Amino acid sequence: MKIAETDFQAWMGGVQARMETALSRLLPAAQVAPTKLHAAMRYASLEGGKRVRPLLAFAAGELSEAPRERLEIAGAAVELIHAYSLVHDDMPCMDDDVLRRGKPTVHVEYDEATALLVGDALQSLAFQILSENKLADQPQRQLEMVRTLAVAAGSRGMAGGQQIDLDSTGSALTPPELEFMHIHKTGALIRAAVLLGFLCGEKISESEKKQLDRYAKAVGLAFQVVDDVLDADASTATLGKTAGKDSKQGKPTYVSVVGLPAARRMADELRQEAREAVRDFGGRAHRLTALADFIVLRKF
Amino acid sequence: MKIAETDFQAWMGGVQARMETALSRLLPAAQVAPTKLHAAMRYASLEGGKRVRPLLAFAAGELSEAPRERLEIAGAAVELIHAYSLVHDDMPCMDDDVLRRGKPTVHVEYDEATALLVGDALQSLAFQILSENKLADQPQRQLEMVRTLAVAAGSRGMAGGQQIDLDSTGSALTPPELEFMHIHKTGALIRAAVLLGFLCGEKISESEKKQLDRYAKAVGLAFQVVDDVLDADASTATLGKTAGKDSKQGKPTYVSVVGLPAARRMADELRQEAREAVRDFGGRAHRLTALADFIVLRKF
Repeated sequence: MKIAETDFQAWMGGVQARMETALSRLLPAAQVAPTKLHAAMRYASLEGGKRVRPLLAFAAGELSEAPRERLEIAGAAVELIHAYSLVHDDMPCMDDDVLRRGKPTVHVEYDEATALLVGDALQSLAFQILSENKLADQPQRQLEMVRTLAVAAGSRGMAGGQQIDLDSTGSALTPPELEFMHIHKTGALIRAAVLLGFLCGEKISESEKKQLDRYAKAVGLAFQVVDDVLDADASTATLGKTAGKDSKQGKPTYVSVVGLPAARRMADELRQEAREAVRDFGGRAHRLTALADFIVLRKF
Repeated sequence: MKIAETDFQAWMGGVQARMETALSRLLPAAQVAPTKLHAAMRYASLEGGKRVRPLLAFAAGELSEAPRERLEIAGAAVELIHAYSLVHDDMPCMDDDVLRRGKPTVHVEYDEATALLVGDALQSLAFQILSENKLADQPQRQLEMVRTLAVAAGSRGMAGGQQIDLDSTGSALTPPELEFMHIHKTGALIRAAVLLGFLCGEKISESEKKQLDRYAKAVGLAFQVVDDVLDADASTATLGKTAGKDSKQGKPTYVSVVGLPAARRMADELRQEAREAVRDFGGRAHRLTALADFIVLRKF
């Protein structure tokens, strides 16, 4: 193992541990009424996931010298939106899945009605923590963060991408249509994570924001392409979620639309595009480039 | 009909018409992709409902001399949260209802997965409009509005109340337990409507905020007590939603817990309590007192 890799692994582990503590603190305690809802919200959000979105927020925050305490909140807000989307996604009326992060999904462990409310309440909590903690010297900047997350989560972002996904099941998409779907479904929230992390700092330049956005678009799409490759390739045990599900459900994936070798090539091109986008930042972007590598080269 | 009543009806009709226009403008057009989701979001939010929450926001805004343009946004944000909660509430895994505001519910008119996404996206939209429009001279005040709505919607507000409702189905509640449930399920969002309307103005006093909150608590509970009375009393045609459903589903209501005459008395006591809470405001609170009367004396 190279020294750079060891350093990256240590940094990643550190952020993941910080996020676990932050999420545990920000989520209502399981003893607070209604206890079943709060226990289920914690079940859905804690002890699981790679925390890719918070990692991106922390990496982007290095560019604007953002304080860690703010990055924890911003990262947690994005992660709560992500967690809520997984809970609703897994429900019987959507993907009907029983396994997530190696554990029974929320509607299996609890019940469907509770899963519905868990998702709803996690979304509210994301906006609550984003508005009740100080995340910027100017409150106007903080309102921009609320708006960025709301747009990314909504009908012209993640929820809209889910709808396109639903409507495309069983139909043949062209590569541009597939890209349009994923830019919404996965990409929007990943872009929000990068932007929110950057906005937590005080050294904000509009031109840097644009370069970061280019990075975030490439990484967001790469993330989904790799997900599709892994879904076709890996086993359920490695993924911690049901493997091969998308193709069984007749959902278009990069593998089904362009084939496995082309999907692999595409992921690597997007990794190069992401690295290229932040080249001007030099060494300050080393976490961002390492994350682009991690996202594309991961095996789970 | 008395002159005061005519005036109140005209004011109410005016606010309702303004809100219809505002919501129609704030919701994405049905032609914007994903078109099915946007059409369904409009279906769930437009042409329906008494707009009680926006009416309360407008009435409270009169106390702080809030501009109408701001009240429309604040009222719409609260109404979008309310609309999302109805869509999710009606789903098969919750109340499983087919009729709402005299029309088929969203999962019946579209499908369950779309209904799930409609609710999710309406919640995001509420926070989007609350953060992207100027609602206060100080952005700090606007962040307070975001926080107020998020807390009211979340696990310690509306969503928490729904969970208590779910868990109490089929069990005998005491009157205090029932009150606890409704303070969360209905009361939290009604309080948020009153507070948000007040916060849209610039003439904010903390002591007035407290009095208003006392008013809002009474009106919020009165609203639910009257709902239970009407549910026991009225026909499906008058209500525009399935009547008598709560008792059929074994859900505790004020009528089932304390009986019809006591529930009626309780509603009137809460109406007096609401009027009393805003007595110090004198004539400036005449819309608030008229609304308390309207909420308790309504027949639908």
